[in-house]
Amino acid sequence: MASQNKKKILNDPVYGFITIPNDLTFDLVEHPYFQRLRRIKQLGLSELVYPGALHTRFHHALGAMHLMGQAIQTLRSKGHRISEAECDAAQIAILLHDIGHGPFSHVLEYSILEGIAHERVSLLLMKDLNRQFSGRLSLAIEMFEGTYHRPFFHQLVSSQLDMDRMDYLNRDCFYTGVAEGTIGADRIIKMLDLVDDSLVVEAKGILSIENFLSSRRLMYWQVYLHKTSLCAESMLVQIMRRARFLLTQSEQDATEAVFTTPALRVFLSKPVTMEEFENHPEYLSAFTQLDDYDIWTSIKLWSQHSDRVLSILCQMLLDRRLFKIMMSDQPFVGELVREIEQQLLDSGIRQDELSYFLVEGVATNSAYLPSIDNINIKRKDDRIIDIADASDLPGIKALTNMVRRYYICWAKNRVQRPVWLV
Amino acid sequence: MASQNKKKILNDPVYGFITIPNDLTFDLVEHPYFQRLRRIKQLGLSELVYPGALHTRFHHALGAMHLMGQAIQTLRSKGHRISEAECDAAQIAILLHDIGHGPFSHVLEYSILEGIAHERVSLLLMKDLNRQFSGRLSLAIEMFEGTYHRPFFHQLVSSQLDMDRMDYLNRDCFYTGVAEGTIGADRIIKMLDLVDDSLVVEAKGILSIENFLSSRRLMYWQVYLHKTSLCAESMLVQIMRRARFLLTQSEQDATEAVFTTPALRVFLSKPVTMEEFENHPEYLSAFTQLDDYDIWTSIKLWSQHSDRVLSILCQMLLDRRLFKIMMSDQPFVGELVREIEQQLLDSGIRQDELSYFLVEGVATNSAYLPSIDNINIKRKDDRIIDIADASDLPGIKALTNMVRRYYICWAKNRVQRPVWLV
Amino acid sequence: MASQNKKKILNDPVYGFITIPNDLTFDLVEHPYFQRLRRIKQLGLSELVYPGALHTRFHHALGAMHLMGQAIQTLRSKGHRISEAECDAAQIAILLHDIGHGPFSHVLEYSILEGIAHERVSLLLMKDLNRQFSGRLSLAIEMFEGTYHRPFFHQLVSSQLDMDRMDYLNRDCFYTGVAEGTIGADRIIKMLDLVDDSLVVEAKGILSIENFLSSRRLMYWQVYLHKTSLCAESMLVQIMRRARFLLTQSEQDATEAVFTTPALRVFLSKPVTMEEFENHPEYLSAFTQLDDYDIWTSIKLWSQHSDRVLSILCQMLLDRRLFKIMMSDQPFVGELVREIEQQLLDSGIRQDELSYFLVEGVATNSAYLPSIDNINIKRKDDRIIDIADASDLPGIKALTNMVRRYYICWAKNRVQRPVWLV
Amino acid sequence: MASQNKKKILNDPVYGFITIPNDLTFDLVEHPYFQRLRRIKQLGLSELVYPGALHTRFHHALGAMHLMGQAIQTLRSKGHRISEAECDAAQIAILLHDIGHGPFSHVLEYSILEGIAHERVSLLLMKDLNRQFSGRLSLAIEMFEGTYHRPFFHQLVSSQLDMDRMDYLNRDCFYTGVAEGTIGADRIIKMLDLVDDSLVVEAKGILSIENFLSSRRLMYWQVYLHKTSLCAESMLVQIMRRARFLLTQSEQDATEAVFTTPALRVFLSKPVTMEEFENHPEYLSAFTQLDDYDIWTSIKLWSQHSDRVLSILCQMLLDRRLFKIMMSDQPFVGELVREIEQQLLDSGIRQDELSYFLVEGVATNSAYLPSIDNINIKRKDDRIIDIADASDLPGIKALTNMVRRYYICWAKNRVQRPVWLV
Repeated sequence: MASQNKKKILNDPVYGFITIPNDLTFDLVEHPYFQRLRRIKQLGLSELVYPGALHTRFHHALGAMHLMGQAIQTLRSKGHRISEAECDAAQIAILLHDIGHGPFSHVLEYSILEGIAHERVSLLLMKDLNRQFSGRLSLAIEMFEGTYHRPFFHQLVSSQLDMDRMDYLNRDCFYTGVAEGTIGADRIIKMLDLVDDSLVVEAKGILSIENFLSSRRLMYWQVYLHKTSLCAESMLVQIMRRARFLLTQSEQDATEAVFTTPALRVFLSKPVTMEEFENHPEYLSAFTQLDDYDIWTSIKLWSQHSDRVLSILCQMLLDRRLFKIMMSDQPFVGELVREIEQQLLDSGIRQDELSYFLVEGVATNSAYLPSIDNINIKRKDDRIIDIADASDLPGIKALTNMVRRYYICWAKNRVQRPVWLV
Repeated sequence: MASQNKKKILNDPVYGFITIPNDLTFDLVEHPYFQRLRRIKQLGLSELVYPGALHTRFHHALGAMHLMGQAIQTLRSKGHRISEAECDAAQIAILLHDIGHGPFSHVLEYSILEGIAHERVSLLLMKDLNRQFSGRLSLAIEMFEGTYHRPFFHQLVSSQLDMDRMDYLNRDCFYTGVAEGTIGADRIIKMLDLVDDSLVVEAKGILSIENFLSSRRLMYWQVYLHKTSLCAESMLVQIMRRARFLLTQSEQDATEAVFTTPALRVFLSKPVTMEEFENHPEYLSAFTQLDDYDIWTSIKLWSQHSDRVLSILCQMLLDRRLFKIMMSDQPFVGELVREIEQQLLDSGIRQDELSYFLVEGVATNSAYLPSIDNINIKRKDDRIIDIADASDLPGIKALTNMVRRYYICWAKNRVQRPVWLV
Repeated sequence: MASQNKKKILNDPVYGFITIPNDLTFDLVEHPYFQRLRRIKQLGLSELVYPGALHTRFHHALGAMHLMGQAIQTLRSKGHRISEAECDAAQIAILLHDIGHGPFSHVLEYSILEGIAHERVSLLLMKDLNRQFSGRLSLAIEMFEGTYHRPFFHQLVSSQLDMDRMDYLNRDCFYTGVAEGTIGADRIIKMLDLVDDSLVVEAKGILSIENFLSSRRLMYWQVYLHKTSLCAESMLVQIMRRARFLLTQSEQDATEAVFTTPALRVFLSKPVTMEEFENHPEYLSAFTQLDDYDIWTSIKLWSQHSDRVLSILCQMLLDRRLFKIMMSDQPFVGELVREIEQQLLDSGIRQDELSYFLVEGVATNSAYLPSIDNINIKRKDDRIIDIADASDLPGIKALTNMVRRYYICWAKNRVQRPVWLV
Repeated sequence: MASQNKKKILNDPVYGFITIPNDLTFDLVEHPYFQRLRRIKQLGLSELVYPGALHTRFHHALGAMHLMGQAIQTLRSKGHRISEAECDAAQIAILLHDIGHGPFSHVLEYSILEGIAHERVSLLLMKDLNRQFSGRLSLAIEMFEGTYHRPFFHQLVSSQLDMDRMDYLNRDCFYTGVAEGTIGADRIIKMLDLVDDSLVVEAKGILSIENFLSSRRLMYWQVYLHKTSLCAESMLVQIMRRARFLLTQSEQDATEAVFTTPALRVFLSKPVTMEEFENHPEYLSAFTQLDDYDIWTSIKLWSQHSDRVLSILCQMLLDRRLFKIMMSDQPFVGELVREIEQQLLDSGIRQDELSYFLVEGVATNSAYLPSIDNINIKRKDDRIIDIADASDLPGIKALTNMVRRYYICWAKNRVQRPVWLV
């Protein structure tokens, strides 16, 4: 039977095996929109710090789908009725939750599509797939949007305890080699329960939740906001900004052409608003052609471009000669910034080029913001309380504080092309 | 050559292989005092909750020695001079740090040897070995006692960041299967450094230290003070108390003899003071004959004894029919206690037996007590500060609070012998 | 509800979590017969070579039950009808398959119960449990015995590809740390299928089967028949033989009493035939009291006994001062044996004691004996062939050869008591 | 000091941490030639079968260097004198052994550089680096070439038991998730020894060697020669062939231009001989600009090209709509081939396009070819014998047989563009 042929298992070093549960899911996985995720790294440029962190959105999405299956199995075993259609929809919703990610995931999220979050693109693509698959994704889309009448499905897709985080934390730990960040995803999932169709965690899972929040914080500073990644990502953002500048300038000034793939040109040659994006299918079509390879190949070609800002930044990134960075709990004083600017000017950078070689920014992180989205604990007496109240650790409250780190990074001693490339 | 023959490697599922570094260490490992540790489980009765947690003090001591070797290698690579003699001594000190543990490690620590901590017994045994090995352990003993002039050696053996903890946290996670408790021991070790011969951690290791403290807290509540373990351990302590009572009574009352191994009889027939222990070698000799097997076999035989308190408790523990437990942040009110007492009396327990079937206790835990022992961080500007000040997380301060949990456990509905044993 | 209360999960470092599927299974796990397996090590004395190998038959049985659940899920997903009752029975059959193991598992299998295989005791105990549980184990017993009309259930419990082997190979690798022996149990299980209700493996699983056979062979020589284990086990067998000798002699000769636990005395004071075992419940009752602790405590007490053969062997084993061993592909020539005998006589051993200090034996192993039990491969064209024919590797045939290793081990230079024990 | 600044550690999920041993190695790792390896996947297109297999030559080379350090430590501990200079050179030789790999590693090895093995390019690049680093790589090059007077160094770099294989087998198992292929690399390394400066393995390592050969065979068929990978790789080779055809044709025929990056154009527009490669530095320079991204981006752009052979193949590969494949132990009969050809012709493929859509090939594998390169075992009596003679397993001889699998793959039912792309 067709259905048997399509029942596939995939090797996953994190979970052993992942089973694709049914034909529709299989067809979605086979679809070019989803296959594109094979070419988008989960962690952008973190591979420059953690050489093993090469995993993609493709594997992450499958992993999250796998965990969704386990979560539903747990909830059913506790007596909650979940239909096959709901189960399928929930797995599809999580499978496709990241389908709107573009090249380098979060790194270029607001850079290629200015001001457009990836979730909005995911939704557009899901609707397009729904059209192609004759409406069979409607329930999944409701769950994704949070309009389905049983809220826990949306919570499993997107909340403090969603299957997205369960998968990415474990997967990122695995591929970076930061073993100490490991969370007890399987234990947390076994502790999930429902009260009034909302997700809660059994009281005996509190320690695992605390560990989960604490590990998440570790991963933020150790990996996601690692200072060397911040440098590389700042450089990439400046590269894209310069390319966009040259592309929009070039017609008048007739400088050397700036290579881009056709799909990338669509987004670099002029800003696209969300409204345009929604109403003109050619944008969505171009977007689904884009992946990390467009960017990397552009960087490689740009490293030979006659514009020296572009070529220097590109060659530096290719050779992993990165900016120097300083981080601080306080904003940097103007004096320091001006001193660095002077150094750059002394080294031959022009005033109008400064902003490409000196970047200021803020990295923020809060492990848990109960004001936005709660983690609810079900006590033994069946009362529901917030994790920050359930925990005996004042520290869990501490995790709710926003941490803010200021950084400044700049091209130090490296603006020239390396000797071996002369 | 002899030295080559004795260079042994051991399989360790946690680290892959452990190499025994030299002849003296090899001879110590072969010594009956150390081989005895094969028969003492690291986690007492935790195996009743975590069936994989069967590892012994023997493997832990070897693992800690292995990590000590890595710590010394790191410190040397940072330019600190450590002689071969110092290196050997540090490895021996950590190898033998737990040699004074008795049956069931901490569970019976103050029960068999009333009021005597295992470290004091370790010291006695190390001195005895030093005599047998003609003074070659003197330096190791200085390090163990903290009298050696370079304090970091003692810190590596016994402090907030000692190799003891590094090993036991990882090993206990591994064997219990509580993967979320995993710490970055190898990373922490690579971040160790010395300032004025005292142990510090490089600033970039702060996150790993925070994770280490947080994992330690997790392991305390999830494993070491797990409520089911507390039950089982309370029962074991009551069993030993009852046996001691019967043994000291029996001569006058001529009840049925209470089996004990000769070594166990030494300690159950009358309390031994530390002074006696130090001055009469027969006590040390008896102690080195004792291990988990003496206790388990006694429990098995006692389960057939005519004293019903003893036999019921022993049979319950053997069959894993454990007390019921309640835990609370507050002390239990007298009313509740009296209610439980009444239940027990109603079920046929006599007034003078009550204290064996109803146990109250307090479990306490603090992940980090800076007042006792600091973790010092070396900032980039070379200033040394306490981890609680270095961390941006208010929670690290929270981890310094003492957490106190009250518990009460008692024999509920199970006092009778099970039907299948009649 | 009771049924929910009894749905328990256990931590297992090998699989993460094991779920106990239903009330009956839970009650069986709680039964003293099964709890006894906590006190019987899976690998006898292998811990003297691999210090991590302390896992018990208890954990192995639960692990095999876990894999049985996965195998049934796979078979069902391929369209084979398996009822709930069959599923439960299969899990119970594998859960109890080793319940008849005595102290030290295989080491003393034919020594304590002379000539009685553990499977026969397992069957007796299962029948006894069936009586206690009002016949609810009848189907499981049919599967265990191989009388149920669907043969694959028996094959899953006991055959070349049973869940027993799948679990013990992975578990033994894990706890010994011999990672290279790891098999693809989950992959093999996913490749299982049925043809005429007999177990087959899909053709694309051939490589995993080959690897499984090859790993099994590795584990045999590297672990199960490791020469140091053979030494220790030979010593243990001689110790039991000597104790039995003294016990049967002692009444007449009035030598010092030989300590045994009451249960052990039943089997050491006179041989028990299978017929007696089946017909006199007191033997079964005594057997279910026996575990590793009876033996270890006896060894500890015997090490102080006045019979020097007994005390020397026991003290040697306790202190891990083991026999010397030689292995060979050929039987040892009489000359060599006589030379060793002479050495022993010269060192003070008496002629009538020789057989306790000098042991000859044969270790055999064949990874795959198709004459006894086949592994069938289902080719793409649906033809069924034997793995030895399906594999392109002549070596798979080679694995079918019986390998035979002769060994001789004896007490060399160590017959005297060590100085520190004088 | 500079030397301390450059002592870097890298996270590696396989080994935990990798330490870069000294400044020179650090500078080599930082060099653009080596950084390029970040952009070349270890396993070409295997990621289409094993989605986790995204690791690069960069990580592999560092891992092999790490193992080389361990091997040298083992040999030194057995009394063999190895100078610091030799140690450094050996680590550099293995670090750079794969630096000559081009895009997709082995897949395009003879396709981009027709008839030139990657080792020859590695040597050219090492010599170029030696010039840049003032001759400090001379000893490493001698070891790599096998001209150094102590042969074991070359054997550690390239032989049956080299650190290359030790790393790639473990790393490939890890990232594919094929856990059953795990080898005991650390154990094998600890068993290495030297006799007359040639590498041997201690007799007690035989089982690990057998397992290593058996695992290698498993990995070949399960991963490296997996039929789906063979399909994808065949398609990629045809794509390159078609692009080369169009590029060399295009000038005369004035068809639409075929995009290539400048570096790729060098090699596709005309064949480069080894002699040209060696004598014209611009070829080496172009080669060091090439990586996977050049190919993937070309494929993406070519999927829009007007040549339908090129565009169809490219779009199929991008969307993972792969050829159908048949494998056999026998060559395929002409009849079958002609039948497939007819199907293709019927589906609209032209005669002159057939060879792009129908590929025949042979995959071969032999785990161990002693005629080429021996694995020598050092017996306890110090005699040296070949592993095939030392092993009691006839199968080890079997592993020496060449296995040959014929395959035929073709575009079935998929030649048209998928509907969603119209």
